[in-house]
Amino acid sequence: MIKGIWLSLSYFHYMKALFIGFIILSACFSVSFAQDKDSVIIRKLAMEIMSHTYAYENLRHLCKEIGPRLSGSANSLKAVQATADMLKQAGADTVYLQPCLVTHWERGEKETGYAETGNGEKHVLKLCALGNTISTGENGIKAALVMVSSFEELDRLGEKGIKGKMVYYNYPMNPTYVETFKAYAESGIFRRNGPSKAAKYGAVAVIIRSLASNIDDYPHTGATTYNDSFPKIPAIAISTKDAEWLNFQLKAKQSVTVFFKTSCRMLDDAHSFNVIGEMRGTSFPAEIITVGGHLDSWDLGEGAQDDGAGCVQSIEIIRALKATGIKPKRTIRAVMFMNEENGGKGAKEYLLQAKKRNEQHVFALESDAGGFTPRGFNLDMKEEQRTRLEKWKYLFDDYAVYDFKAGGSGSDIGPLKEIGTALAGLRPDSQRYFDLHHAATDVFETVSIRELNLGTVNMAALVWLVSEYGL
Amino acid sequence: MIKGIWLSLSYFHYMKALFIGFIILSACFSVSFAQDKDSVIIRKLAMEIMSHTYAYENLRHLCKEIGPRLSGSANSLKAVQATADMLKQAGADTVYLQPCLVTHWERGEKETGYAETGNGEKHVLKLCALGNTISTGENGIKAALVMVSSFEELDRLGEKGIKGKMVYYNYPMNPTYVETFKAYAESGIFRRNGPSKAAKYGAVAVIIRSLASNIDDYPHTGATTYNDSFPKIPAIAISTKDAEWLNFQLKAKQSVTVFFKTSCRMLDDAHSFNVIGEMRGTSFPAEIITVGGHLDSWDLGEGAQDDGAGCVQSIEIIRALKATGIKPKRTIRAVMFMNEENGGKGAKEYLLQAKKRNEQHVFALESDAGGFTPRGFNLDMKEEQRTRLEKWKYLFDDYAVYDFKAGGSGSDIGPLKEIGTALAGLRPDSQRYFDLHHAATDVFETVSIRELNLGTVNMAALVWLVSEYGL
Repeated sequence: MIKGIWLSLSYFHYMKALFIGFIILSACFSVSFAQDKDSVIIRKLAMEIMSHTYAYENLRHLCKEIGPRLSGSANSLKAVQATADMLKQAGADTVYLQPCLVTHWERGEKETGYAETGNGEKHVLKLCALGNTISTGENGIKAALVMVSSFEELDRLGEKGIKGKMVYYNYPMNPTYVETFKAYAESGIFRRNGPSKAAKYGAVAVIIRSLASNIDDYPHTGATTYNDSFPKIPAIAISTKDAEWLNFQLKAKQSVTVFFKTSCRMLDDAHSFNVIGEMRGTSFPAEIITVGGHLDSWDLGEGAQDDGAGCVQSIEIIRALKATGIKPKRTIRAVMFMNEENGGKGAKEYLLQAKKRNEQHVFALESDAGGFTPRGFNLDMKEEQRTRLEKWKYLFDDYAVYDFKAGGSGSDIGPLKEIGTALAGLRPDSQRYFDLHHAATDVFETVSIRELNLGTVNMAALVWLVSEYGL
Repeated sequence: MIKGIWLSLSYFHYMKALFIGFIILSACFSVSFAQDKDSVIIRKLAMEIMSHTYAYENLRHLCKEIGPRLSGSANSLKAVQATADMLKQAGADTVYLQPCLVTHWERGEKETGYAETGNGEKHVLKLCALGNTISTGENGIKAALVMVSSFEELDRLGEKGIKGKMVYYNYPMNPTYVETFKAYAESGIFRRNGPSKAAKYGAVAVIIRSLASNIDDYPHTGATTYNDSFPKIPAIAISTKDAEWLNFQLKAKQSVTVFFKTSCRMLDDAHSFNVIGEMRGTSFPAEIITVGGHLDSWDLGEGAQDDGAGCVQSIEIIRALKATGIKPKRTIRAVMFMNEENGGKGAKEYLLQAKKRNEQHVFALESDAGGFTPRGFNLDMKEEQRTRLEKWKYLFDDYAVYDFKAGGSGSDIGPLKEIGTALAGLRPDSQRYFDLHHAATDVFETVSIRELNLGTVNMAALVWLVSEYGL
């Protein structure tokens, strides 16, 4: 068969075949050479990151020296200065602050409350105000409790069943989902929309079961959004242990009355900043790759996993590139976004400035799902970009990341979609995240230096590959 | 083209083609039906396991009600009774104790020690005796320290450099390895062989840097093995923080003298048991599948990750099968092995009994790498068995396990290799394991119920698949 083909070739065809053969051969060599070069560079970055403690020590500083960093707080401004310093230390070519106005909500005094059953049992509640809610005022609020497990149930009860009462949304995170973010999305609607939906029927206050994947004594906060069509009412989260106690009482047909007092308040938007550190690209400096996390955190914990981890990982990428002398062809920008938790105004400002300056944002990667052991990346980009990116998948095998799939990237880089930026999110293992998310338990001690660094290695690899080859 | 083929067919050929087509079609259907059935059954097991807390509560009992369970200790016998009860509760058809003689070593009093530098600085050491070592006696031992980082260095120093001194093996776990077990294997040789290698040159005692992946104040114990050709000398591990302090002194050319006192002792082998719970196979009851972990633990912590987790996971598989009414075709045996940590005599007895009774052990799976989020399985079996097993890989995708590869299974099931058993080991994420392995920090609180259960789900799926289809 082969012989037949060769015999039928004219000299021209012969030369052409030879030429094509040469092209194929050299393509093979250059592909294997490129692959080899890529894995060598990634290995270099990995060795640099895994053998140092910079990211971990930066995180310690954010958590232990500064602490909670809610937007508008004095701490959040200390964190701005600290991360700008860290970026300089890391060797960024340029470090600057991008001014933005951010939501400024304050919790006020520690909240108090209790539940009372029909037969006189009194139970002190571990509770916290939901972010962005109004307070109960000095006297607190006391009302009979109505439990619902869905908005449909709320609608069925209507004004008749709800008016003057306190609505208790009891919707545990589904423990059978392997991805905890799926359970969070499902139960999260009660925190976000529950207060206004209940106010529509005349409820005086709202309680939600904390969005937590474990049973413990710590309430989990998080932002709620009032719908301006209905009165604003106070809303709190109670610990999952308290929720279990309440459920037990209500199942036993006990009537329950709850009292709670909050003194939180919404102030005028505050002046703050996104913190940006750049490493200028050598070949295509105008093409920008953003890698970031958010600098603000809830006020109850130290914001170690959410999202101190994402910030120090982004800074570490700059440091590792500098320390290894690897020069990216495209510009890499580490960005600490402000106000992710209760306003997203840092992210909006970042987009606004990008549009104003007509910047070319080719790729953005966010780490905002904890500093846990990395599993993969969520990709939010055009099909052909995803296909291109997935060709690099094998380069991540050695770093325990196997799972590339379509999915949400991160809320800070999300707005860049408007200008066509290809987006990705680091996906760490999610099993432990909602044990501590938005709670007092989100502290530095829960972060493993190895997991944090391994996440950075994979982020650095992806960022470098895009900087080298584009998408 | 197709038309041409059809036209050329005789009636015979036509009927034959039709028949073949039918066979292919039904094969396709039955394959997709089998696949569907498999994933439905695995889903059922997963739902049962993920929505319950039995394994976690059993682990709590082992850790908090019983505590450390070193072979030969009173606690280890309490754990035997407790896990036998758990297996009965889980619904095992038969529960029995398999007697075995086990290593019986005792730590004695809490160890003490300090280092003194040439310029008079005194530093209290956090230390522990290595498992199975002899004690220093009442008066303790004091000697000048010689640091080495390899056995080659030790050999170079020889008797001249070592005699009468205390050898300090300073070999940190390599932080750049992604798999911490690789680093453990590399540095573990100093714990296992270091004392006798140093005794060969006349050393009076040995110190090792704890086999730990983090820097903290907790010494990590673990078994050492004396070589009978050389004198037995006392050996301890110091915390990684102390090792860093020592390294600093030695780098600064400070001479260092160390004193320590241990009162540990090796007793005669003790009577103990492996604990076994069986679920009899419906079709091939003589074919045995072992799934297990080890019940003994080091005495410093609670043995939560090492290896209470593996025990309660194995029990949970029996419970989930019973609770869901899924009947395995082959016999499934949950085995809690005794004496893994410092003798492996439970495992040897299990093999001995298997041989004596001429049992047919088709497959064994061990979980002894912590109760962390599962990543994959190590497979130690014939190439064709591995190929067969890897065809099921897609069934694990939904449970976040992607990584099947050749590798060691577990030291308790390892001996079964002698009788041709196909072996596998659950491979959880290894990043956090050596922060707490063999140390006081291996406690219940470090275990995530979700990670523990997700590990069980994947183990249950693999065990069920082998019980259904064999290997």
